[in-house]
Amino acid sequence: MPVKNGSDYIERINRHLPDVWIAGERVRGLISEHQAFKGLMATQASMYDMQQAEEWQAKMTYASPSTGDPVGLSFLQPKTKKDLALRRQMMQAWASAHHGFLGRAPDYMNTAIMAFAAAAGLIEKETPEYADNLRRYYEYCRENDVTLSHVFIQPKAARMPAFLRTFEEDAAARVVEKNKDGIVVRGAFLLDTQGATSDEILVFPAPFPYGGGEDSPYAFAFAVPSNLAGVSFICRESFVGGESAYNYPLSSRFEEMDTLVLFEDALVPWDRVFICGNERMAWQLVDESRFHTHAGMQIMCKNIAKTEFILGTLERMVEVGGLDSYGHVTEKVTEVIVALETLKAFQIAAEKGASRDKWGSMLPDPKPLLAANSYFPKVYPRFLEIIQLIGASGLIMIPDEADFGTEIGGQLNLYLKGIDLSAEENVKLSRLAWELSVSAFGGRQAVYERFFFGNAAVVDGRLYNTYKERETLGRRVQDFLSGKDGKGLG
Amino acid sequence: MPVKNGSDYIERINRHLPDVWIAGERVRGLISEHQAFKGLMATQASMYDMQQAEEWQAKMTYASPSTGDPVGLSFLQPKTKKDLALRRQMMQAWASAHHGFLGRAPDYMNTAIMAFAAAAGLIEKETPEYADNLRRYYEYCRENDVTLSHVFIQPKAARMPAFLRTFEEDAAARVVEKNKDGIVVRGAFLLDTQGATSDEILVFPAPFPYGGGEDSPYAFAFAVPSNLAGVSFICRESFVGGESAYNYPLSSRFEEMDTLVLFEDALVPWDRVFICGNERMAWQLVDESRFHTHAGMQIMCKNIAKTEFILGTLERMVEVGGLDSYGHVTEKVTEVIVALETLKAFQIAAEKGASRDKWGSMLPDPKPLLAANSYFPKVYPRFLEIIQLIGASGLIMIPDEADFGTEIGGQLNLYLKGIDLSAEENVKLSRLAWELSVSAFGGRQAVYERFFFGNAAVVDGRLYNTYKERETLGRRVQDFLSGKDGKGLG
Amino acid sequence: MPVKNGSDYIERINRHLPDVWIAGERVRGLISEHQAFKGLMATQASMYDMQQAEEWQAKMTYASPSTGDPVGLSFLQPKTKKDLALRRQMMQAWASAHHGFLGRAPDYMNTAIMAFAAAAGLIEKETPEYADNLRRYYEYCRENDVTLSHVFIQPKAARMPAFLRTFEEDAAARVVEKNKDGIVVRGAFLLDTQGATSDEILVFPAPFPYGGGEDSPYAFAFAVPSNLAGVSFICRESFVGGESAYNYPLSSRFEEMDTLVLFEDALVPWDRVFICGNERMAWQLVDESRFHTHAGMQIMCKNIAKTEFILGTLERMVEVGGLDSYGHVTEKVTEVIVALETLKAFQIAAEKGASRDKWGSMLPDPKPLLAANSYFPKVYPRFLEIIQLIGASGLIMIPDEADFGTEIGGQLNLYLKGIDLSAEENVKLSRLAWELSVSAFGGRQAVYERFFFGNAAVVDGRLYNTYKERETLGRRVQDFLSGKDGKGLG
Amino acid sequence: MPVKNGSDYIERINRHLPDVWIAGERVRGLISEHQAFKGLMATQASMYDMQQAEEWQAKMTYASPSTGDPVGLSFLQPKTKKDLALRRQMMQAWASAHHGFLGRAPDYMNTAIMAFAAAAGLIEKETPEYADNLRRYYEYCRENDVTLSHVFIQPKAARMPAFLRTFEEDAAARVVEKNKDGIVVRGAFLLDTQGATSDEILVFPAPFPYGGGEDSPYAFAFAVPSNLAGVSFICRESFVGGESAYNYPLSSRFEEMDTLVLFEDALVPWDRVFICGNERMAWQLVDESRFHTHAGMQIMCKNIAKTEFILGTLERMVEVGGLDSYGHVTEKVTEVIVALETLKAFQIAAEKGASRDKWGSMLPDPKPLLAANSYFPKVYPRFLEIIQLIGASGLIMIPDEADFGTEIGGQLNLYLKGIDLSAEENVKLSRLAWELSVSAFGGRQAVYERFFFGNAAVVDGRLYNTYKERETLGRRVQDFLSGKDGKGLG
Repeated sequence: MPVKNGSDYIERINRHLPDVWIAGERVRGLISEHQAFKGLMATQASMYDMQQAEEWQAKMTYASPSTGDPVGLSFLQPKTKKDLALRRQMMQAWASAHHGFLGRAPDYMNTAIMAFAAAAGLIEKETPEYADNLRRYYEYCRENDVTLSHVFIQPKAARMPAFLRTFEEDAAARVVEKNKDGIVVRGAFLLDTQGATSDEILVFPAPFPYGGGEDSPYAFAFAVPSNLAGVSFICRESFVGGESAYNYPLSSRFEEMDTLVLFEDALVPWDRVFICGNERMAWQLVDESRFHTHAGMQIMCKNIAKTEFILGTLERMVEVGGLDSYGHVTEKVTEVIVALETLKAFQIAAEKGASRDKWGSMLPDPKPLLAANSYFPKVYPRFLEIIQLIGASGLIMIPDEADFGTEIGGQLNLYLKGIDLSAEENVKLSRLAWELSVSAFGGRQAVYERFFFGNAAVVDGRLYNTYKERETLGRRVQDFLSGKDGKGLG
Repeated sequence: MPVKNGSDYIERINRHLPDVWIAGERVRGLISEHQAFKGLMATQASMYDMQQAEEWQAKMTYASPSTGDPVGLSFLQPKTKKDLALRRQMMQAWASAHHGFLGRAPDYMNTAIMAFAAAAGLIEKETPEYADNLRRYYEYCRENDVTLSHVFIQPKAARMPAFLRTFEEDAAARVVEKNKDGIVVRGAFLLDTQGATSDEILVFPAPFPYGGGEDSPYAFAFAVPSNLAGVSFICRESFVGGESAYNYPLSSRFEEMDTLVLFEDALVPWDRVFICGNERMAWQLVDESRFHTHAGMQIMCKNIAKTEFILGTLERMVEVGGLDSYGHVTEKVTEVIVALETLKAFQIAAEKGASRDKWGSMLPDPKPLLAANSYFPKVYPRFLEIIQLIGASGLIMIPDEADFGTEIGGQLNLYLKGIDLSAEENVKLSRLAWELSVSAFGGRQAVYERFFFGNAAVVDGRLYNTYKERETLGRRVQDFLSGKDGKGLG
Repeated sequence: MPVKNGSDYIERINRHLPDVWIAGERVRGLISEHQAFKGLMATQASMYDMQQAEEWQAKMTYASPSTGDPVGLSFLQPKTKKDLALRRQMMQAWASAHHGFLGRAPDYMNTAIMAFAAAAGLIEKETPEYADNLRRYYEYCRENDVTLSHVFIQPKAARMPAFLRTFEEDAAARVVEKNKDGIVVRGAFLLDTQGATSDEILVFPAPFPYGGGEDSPYAFAFAVPSNLAGVSFICRESFVGGESAYNYPLSSRFEEMDTLVLFEDALVPWDRVFICGNERMAWQLVDESRFHTHAGMQIMCKNIAKTEFILGTLERMVEVGGLDSYGHVTEKVTEVIVALETLKAFQIAAEKGASRDKWGSMLPDPKPLLAANSYFPKVYPRFLEIIQLIGASGLIMIPDEADFGTEIGGQLNLYLKGIDLSAEENVKLSRLAWELSVSAFGGRQAVYERFFFGNAAVVDGRLYNTYKERETLGRRVQDFLSGKDGKGLG
Repeated sequence: MPVKNGSDYIERINRHLPDVWIAGERVRGLISEHQAFKGLMATQASMYDMQQAEEWQAKMTYASPSTGDPVGLSFLQPKTKKDLALRRQMMQAWASAHHGFLGRAPDYMNTAIMAFAAAAGLIEKETPEYADNLRRYYEYCRENDVTLSHVFIQPKAARMPAFLRTFEEDAAARVVEKNKDGIVVRGAFLLDTQGATSDEILVFPAPFPYGGGEDSPYAFAFAVPSNLAGVSFICRESFVGGESAYNYPLSSRFEEMDTLVLFEDALVPWDRVFICGNERMAWQLVDESRFHTHAGMQIMCKNIAKTEFILGTLERMVEVGGLDSYGHVTEKVTEVIVALETLKAFQIAAEKGASRDKWGSMLPDPKPLLAANSYFPKVYPRFLEIIQLIGASGLIMIPDEADFGTEIGGQLNLYLKGIDLSAEENVKLSRLAWELSVSAFGGRQAVYERFFFGNAAVVDGRLYNTYKERETLGRRVQDFLSGKDGKGLG
């Protein structure tokens, strides 16, 4: 089966009927027509359409090694620098379709499952059957263009056994039974972004310490359809402001729902199990598969697209407000320019510094990617602050599209103009700036970016701990102090 | 007539029927039952109730100099330090009722109109009749406990004559006619916070330069009932999330609507005119009435209450999350503690340094107040950032109150507990933290605080330009360089 | 004996002949004539002179309770708010003589020894003889106007027993012997600022954990003359740039030397021992004597004087450079104004909120003082950054006083003028700005302020852990969430 | 003549005898033996030695197009990406010899004169003889390996005609006479770094506005030997701490003196004149020669070497202090790692995005370079702050090398050890950290970096104003708001 298009995507999700809850109601009817999911699914459908569109297909797909059919390029295991470039172009194309607002555009998980399967060798020796499962599952996703979501973490009450100090019931996610058909799982997982609008879910929690051995009930990884019996998705409040693209240019298209996933004794079939019991292998597969590095390239495309969108928005605000003569304004816009150039430079450097790893992948240089992972969560909230500081009270007093059609519309037309811009267009721009930086949609994006790959300590730790150059440079300073010169270093 | 209570307030506003537009619809029916205003009006009603409540009246009122009846203490012109203390206690009581979320609690404008009237001497000589109008209007407000809103600025298209470069129609607010009944005003004004739920509106724009003379159509100040013919209020989008105080603990109570006010040839009667034509007097009345200083004390009460509320919220987050052993958490909470102590110290210093001004008012020391005006807009957004950084992804994945009542409620109860706290209470706290720091309500509060008294350049300029100590200290450094010692300074 | 004057101070120090090392040389000859100490001692002498000067004595002294003679006011145990005000005025007078550059002006330790002695009750019950020693020592210092320095911390190698992982010799300071004459002490202590130019030294290290009991060799406190046999002072490099007050306006007067103090089996007589063996009492005496609170008031006077001096310097830079029309300049100067107002407000609040403690002292409110302790170390380096940013390359290319006297002097006179200022005066101002923000003297001041009362974690911890309001406010938020109103709080 | 070596360099400078003043004294005797210049000249000599050293020559030189002799690679006009790579390797080699502390290593001006000469076409049409002068001068410098310094700005008193409000004498640098031999120049220029230790000086001030015409006395550019009659160099204070590389590891080697250069009617021969009279051409030659871009690559090498040195120093501080378990420490070190990766990525991106310009040069992409110019001045002072915060009071109390040789040396050996490090080595490291971040040498480096290419407004403006992507992105946002999708952008 070749890559799917938008209507394939929508149809499959609609057929799926997972158990989804939002504000105390179970979602019934077509999920693609539910206000909370409609805009997102339309956006994502338009992205899948690119895969079959004549002008795009060559850029978006490659020939399946299994069938020769075109399959999604983000599934491609890169083996050369050219592969990296092809992947980047494909991912940048999708990113420019959603302007970086989708944290979980399909290429994110396509890349993830590719990275895990490429590194299946890590679990080959001890559990060859799970290694096979993982490779077969990757092929299955690629060939069926599966829309995949994932969960890595658990709610706090589950994560820390001692967290609640006294408690009767174990809240940690675990395998409660193994039987001939598979493993029975109980637990809760969070931040399954787009969980309700995906075909399948990859579950791969960080295992709790269990005192060694290979039989930890807390160490597991698997993938299942999202409509598996016993699985429920609890949505947070929807931040879709409304259907008007005028009033809600972003949330009407890019609001990707986050969910809490509950497993209540759900049966995972054996052929979908990748890790079961072995704590060490669970850690290794995450750390050594270089998942973070491969995903880092996808994230970079997203972040560049997002930064470009923000810079474009600021540029428009400056133009229609006549602000380019204010030093304190251009200085702030320049901060965003510097950020954009920084991200682009990281992207170039990661690709240029790529090298073959032991799984045969052309692995981008992880250092600029890890630096970007530390950098972006700090700079993105600053972007929003800059929009607020430049937008000022104009980000508060914004009328609605409908106000222009009333008897007071004429006065609004007079008073709300911008430079070379009608009041209606000017207000539309303000609504965009407001959704970006002030609305609940914008607020969720800020928190999401802050914690995209973990908190600052975790993200910084990945860079600090693997940065071998520290020691080299430390020795160079020792040499300097010992009077040895440093010529030819660097 | 004595101070009003909550139902007086609601009844009067409901009778009023101003021309209010929201999302393309004219508000009809009782404004107090409209979702956008209901919670706010209930909160404000409860504050007015305090004025007649037995345990509060003594603290909230003083005897009217006109009638001896109790009138609102925030109308009192302070003549002694004790008056300042009484005013502070009264304002802190109201601030603790709305936890600082109302930028336009009634004491704000009560204070403003008191300050302007006290300084009516500024316009006495040249326009004694306007000075009388101002004093009489103050008395009218005080004796009738008028709920007043105000506007000072105009939309950008109006503010800068050259802003649109070419335009046919003059968008600047102006007096288009004077007749025997009054002046006819055309123009738009913005950010009339609570404009739709006030009895009257004070209009006092910064006048555009008009080349001297005393007959500028752009220089005026007046007050009118908000239901005056020709006046319309355009609301921004309501940020009331819903009526549930569980889901929306803040916006269901404290969402104060901002409006754009349109005057389409509205007739302002002569006895409500305070400035008309004289540009210089318009500037003077704002600058020299010490309005900013008196209002600064009210704002300080609000900001202290708000900072306390934020610190309390953080304290609860730390407690139920078991976070007090993380240095990076307590360090951030300490930032908020330092901010709270700073505001309290400014308050004490302003009161302690008060002195009698030429209008007979006991004027708080403006320096700590101006410093606070510069400080708070920078520190408040940092508070929200701290909440986001401590709340982390727990600020994203928050269920709805209604989810607990469904068949999955049991699982939520298990997985979403906090330390010594049920899941329901824990989620409630998360919803509060989310409304504070991530929601559209929270976002609007951030922008509002950033620009409360103008942008940073304006606010800093007020302090810089009036800070005579700069010169004293500059001379001291000159003396130091000349070898004169500095003993006994300071 | 009454308070001493400057020549008493110098004479006593010169007679003293402690074992002082600087750059590999033992200091010989009169210490007051050594370049590293000369300027500092002259400054301090001029401060002592104020105590006997007719116009100052009333402000600087009070009648000794022992003899009725005038003694230094900073020795006064404050029992009333008036006492606090008197102390403040006295300390502000001294601070304005050294413009805040002396971290260890005599009033610092005068205050410290007063605080410890006032709290001698803490050790009364268990070691009444040591309590007596402490009280008598305080009286001795007060009556003899002793110039005292102190040490609280040990070098890293000593502080952490496990620090060096393997080591043969115990580097921790300890009592190595007790005999009939006293205790024999071995160890090193650091950052004894002004150690070489003080009469006596108070040694009071944080004791290492010793597994309970009351016989820890690591728990001790005592005071000894700085010329005690076995005691050596190692100076850091002197940052006195030279003797020219033109070239080095600050370091030629205010460079207070820091020393490392070595005790090599020095014998401390019993009557000078305040703590010996009891770990718990050592901690208690530091924590519960409220030493930090009393000293906090002295530090506040210093920090206000310093901030004033910096603001004055910036004012002059702005004036002579014609910079007041640059928004980015006045914005930065305003930051310093806000900081100054903040410190002044903390000072007022601490004094206003003072209350009697169990030792009979009128204790300033510790909260604003602790907030100031957290605030100043962050804002002081920013001051220096502001000076650098405003001074720009003018802080690099600064000639020497002597250049003006050469044949090229005429050209310098032409090219280096400021507004209304000769080149010589302009360069003098630049040298001041350079010493403040770029020189080694300025750099040491920056590091000193950053760590004045410990690192940020320690300083913040003092505030966080004692801030009971956190819990009150946490409960208020709980009440709010439970629907209880907050009226009348705050 | 081939490239010179270290002794050629020293000998030539010593023969030169320019008029140099320091602290009121004219420098007499060999400049290479004067304490203020000795260490710097030795360092620079060792760099020149690399040009003739067998193992380095191939990397450091290329064959002169005039003679085929090896000439310095930094003189090479890059025409291919390979040339850029060769230049980078050469410049990185020199940078690693001075660890980035020389702002004016010879490759800086070698690059500058190459860039100006390559763009001589800019002045070809109107002043062909000056264009020839410029090209010939470049060849002269290259073939003679001239050590060149330069000045671009004038003292404030000269820069602003109105600066001093009233003044009799014109302080602006200008051509006071033209005669058959050349032009006679009067004026002062500043921040001629290494002016006293260079062979020649390029003078190229930003011209003052002169009301059009091509005969402005303020518009000129030329190069002259530094011992030209009528030229004097005034040094700032030397920040060489002393000759001990133990005590002053940086300033004893890398203290590059800044000078004020005075021209008192000095005669510049016609063949050394590049611009004379034409204001517009003066601006164009600076802006359009792409001098900033070419120099940007040299600066990048310097800044990478410097950041590496700082990271190495921090690594050692962490190692010997056992600090790697403190989150607040590793978080700060990670900031430096991120900065290093950022600079490296900018370097890669600039080179990868290079393209041929109209002068035939392979021009690096200016965008990442301009971003770096904005970034580094902000991050470098933060590095020093991080060193201070991690070094803490250990940066204050540092003994001298000589202290170890005294009778108290044994005690220092015991108390000042680090982990796996003797006290002597530990103190040496502290002295390095102190010179970097606290000393006058370190302070000057901070100010120098802050203003390396102008103040923030100037540097940001170069990026903002030339960043055409702003408009592209603005249009993209317009398209987005108009409902056009963004697919395939980016």
